[in-house]
Amino acid sequence: MENKLITPRKIQGFWELMPSEEALFEDMLTRLRKVFENNCFQPLDTPVAEFSEILLAKSGGDVDKEIYRFTKGHADICLRYDLTVPLARFVAGNMNELDFPFKRYQIGKVYRGERPQKGRFREFYQCDADVIGENLSLTYDAECIKLYEPCFKELKLDVMVEISNRKLLAGYFESLGGNVVELMTIVDKLDKLPKEEIVALFKDKGLKDKDIENTMKLVATKGDIFAIKTLSSICENETFKKGMQELETVDSYLKALGMQNYLYNLSIVRGHDYYTGTVFECYIKGKRNLGAIGGGGRYDNLCKNFMETKMEGVGMSIGITRLFDILRNENLLNTENYASVELGIITFNETLMAGLTLMSKFRDEGVKADIINETKSFKAKMKEANKRNLPYIIILGEDEVKAGIYTLKDMRTGEQEKLKFDEILEKLK
Amino acid sequence: MENKLITPRKIQGFWELMPSEEALFEDMLTRLRKVFENNCFQPLDTPVAEFSEILLAKSGGDVDKEIYRFTKGHADICLRYDLTVPLARFVAGNMNELDFPFKRYQIGKVYRGERPQKGRFREFYQCDADVIGENLSLTYDAECIKLYEPCFKELKLDVMVEISNRKLLAGYFESLGGNVVELMTIVDKLDKLPKEEIVALFKDKGLKDKDIENTMKLVATKGDIFAIKTLSSICENETFKKGMQELETVDSYLKALGMQNYLYNLSIVRGHDYYTGTVFECYIKGKRNLGAIGGGGRYDNLCKNFMETKMEGVGMSIGITRLFDILRNENLLNTENYASVELGIITFNETLMAGLTLMSKFRDEGVKADIINETKSFKAKMKEANKRNLPYIIILGEDEVKAGIYTLKDMRTGEQEKLKFDEILEKLK
Repeated sequence: MENKLITPRKIQGFWELMPSEEALFEDMLTRLRKVFENNCFQPLDTPVAEFSEILLAKSGGDVDKEIYRFTKGHADICLRYDLTVPLARFVAGNMNELDFPFKRYQIGKVYRGERPQKGRFREFYQCDADVIGENLSLTYDAECIKLYEPCFKELKLDVMVEISNRKLLAGYFESLGGNVVELMTIVDKLDKLPKEEIVALFKDKGLKDKDIENTMKLVATKGDIFAIKTLSSICENETFKKGMQELETVDSYLKALGMQNYLYNLSIVRGHDYYTGTVFECYIKGKRNLGAIGGGGRYDNLCKNFMETKMEGVGMSIGITRLFDILRNENLLNTENYASVELGIITFNETLMAGLTLMSKFRDEGVKADIINETKSFKAKMKEANKRNLPYIIILGEDEVKAGIYTLKDMRTGEQEKLKFDEILEKLK
Repeated sequence: MENKLITPRKIQGFWELMPSEEALFEDMLTRLRKVFENNCFQPLDTPVAEFSEILLAKSGGDVDKEIYRFTKGHADICLRYDLTVPLARFVAGNMNELDFPFKRYQIGKVYRGERPQKGRFREFYQCDADVIGENLSLTYDAECIKLYEPCFKELKLDVMVEISNRKLLAGYFESLGGNVVELMTIVDKLDKLPKEEIVALFKDKGLKDKDIENTMKLVATKGDIFAIKTLSSICENETFKKGMQELETVDSYLKALGMQNYLYNLSIVRGHDYYTGTVFECYIKGKRNLGAIGGGGRYDNLCKNFMETKMEGVGMSIGITRLFDILRNENLLNTENYASVELGIITFNETLMAGLTLMSKFRDEGVKADIINETKSFKAKMKEANKRNLPYIIILGEDEVKAGIYTLKDMRTGEQEKLKFDEILEKLK
């Protein structure tokens, strides 16, 4: 029978790491899960695929070309493109079983069929924490912002959270009589376009020169709560005033929670127009040019496509795939600290059984011990130990087995020590 | 604008748990990951979707109706139905970057579009650990079998692994001049059909009465290695002899590794005909009737569809979704031990800020503290605390804040104690 070989291709843009990197990525996920649980968020894991009418409800059924959509039997199905719509479906479908405010986190893969390019993926992880409830206190806005601190402390990264409230700009644009959605979209482009183009875009939308000047000043405002409060008098619009009040309240909560690494930046609007109040983005300290590695905000009506009851929400998100990609590109990953094998055991034919027993004993004590055990020469086994960067090895001869004393070799320094089992355990821990 | 509501339906048969159960499931996965890493298996996470030509290579391009298949642009794509074919693609595509033997584990979702029914899912988790290499030692067969012990020790379940070697039955059927694949398929049905039907099936395939009788005796053989060795003389076939030799070797390795909970059962063949030697299945001790919760074995040529180099493999798998489903149905889950909030803090208007600070301090020390903070009455807050099964609460009045002494209430016993922050920490840990 002819065996026609197939090229082992992966779909471009789909996330896949080599095992040594994957171990670091898994470690990041485990640490984040721990932080979320510690902050009383409950885990959720929804299906990767949902009925299209659910996922496309937002757009009234329009199919975005980025979405992976297909049919199976009579079912019209899409791969999820975010974790928010599935959350809305889950909350609406389980209203009576859930306790509110419902604090959930979810780490899962999402799908966008766009053209793959540097820093963009078709399959990637999202990592979201949200609080859902009716009449949700602003303390939860503060809690979601504060959550970045323990998350990134666990990941050993210094970050800065930049905060605004969409009601400020929205109210200001209302007071100018402009189209709020269109004008906000222009503000969202501030980081991407030169100043002149932004000004031209505002002009296109009918803003007067004076108003454009004031808008540019407003969106350039950055600093602590006092810098923002100096703006209180510039606008009498009710929405603006409400935004100011919310921002001040959230600030007082952030201070009570002990939050340290944050500032206000009125140019933060977040692309999604479903945010209605607090909005924020998270950056690596001193590396703002790498772009936001997280963001989130407050929204008014999570489940509006699925039920009448109005559920408010506030959520924070970490772009975990993007973050990992950045850390890798910036050489900020500690690949060297990871060893899939901590202790290699090199056996000879006559000590294989003893080696297996020793390996098993070490593993029982939590040491990642492994026999180097291809049907190869001693020389080949030593070469393998070197190639794999094993921190320690034991060469197990018959004398060692009889005496119960093993020569432990530190592969980084070349040092050797004769030690008993318990002494090796202590040394490796 | 009219807002037509959509029923928040999930696709039937897709895996989704309520948060309190999901927490237990995540805990299971975390524990298993730890065991795999401790046994020097490296993590792998391949995409959920692959090119159809990759996933369907095995079947020569035939589309199984159980497979979710679709096109996106020019790409013909399937959702993976197992983790083995993606492993083969990964190994073949990264031959030069991997160290062999390559020990990898993967926990991920797989997809089978069959009709959903009790105990069967369309989206579910698989959990695999495999060792891949050229000329792979039989020590790895023993290692994969042994791996069930630490895995299920972590999950606090007693299990029994039943082991065979396919070469035994294959060799025996060869010696009878029968069609090995067809006859093995009949053996695989032993647990599902009454004896008379099995006998009839063998008869259909041309086996003589005497041979059927001997076959039935053979597949009824269970016990330790000595029970198997008594069969050595029944067949002179070379394959049979090789199987016996392999089984004895694996047994000696299992003993060296300290494996305890296993027996031999010659009726174990595993459905897949790609297994070529050692095969095994794992059962909950005393609950064999619930079916296998794991299984695996040795295969000869993992990457045959993707490259010429012959890579051998041996792997073990845990049906983690099925296992969780069984534990839930048998009331074996410890849902009561899980608390998403360990310490509830009930605040009044004037102590909200102090409450936020206290919550933050507790979280910094690893206590899952949460403010009960809907805009509700004190009574409603107490009711909420009861409803959520919080083990402990603090009612935070102004006096408590001033004195730095808090009344900790044990919600299960009703006992109250006045304690300082550090004393509460100690009590909760």
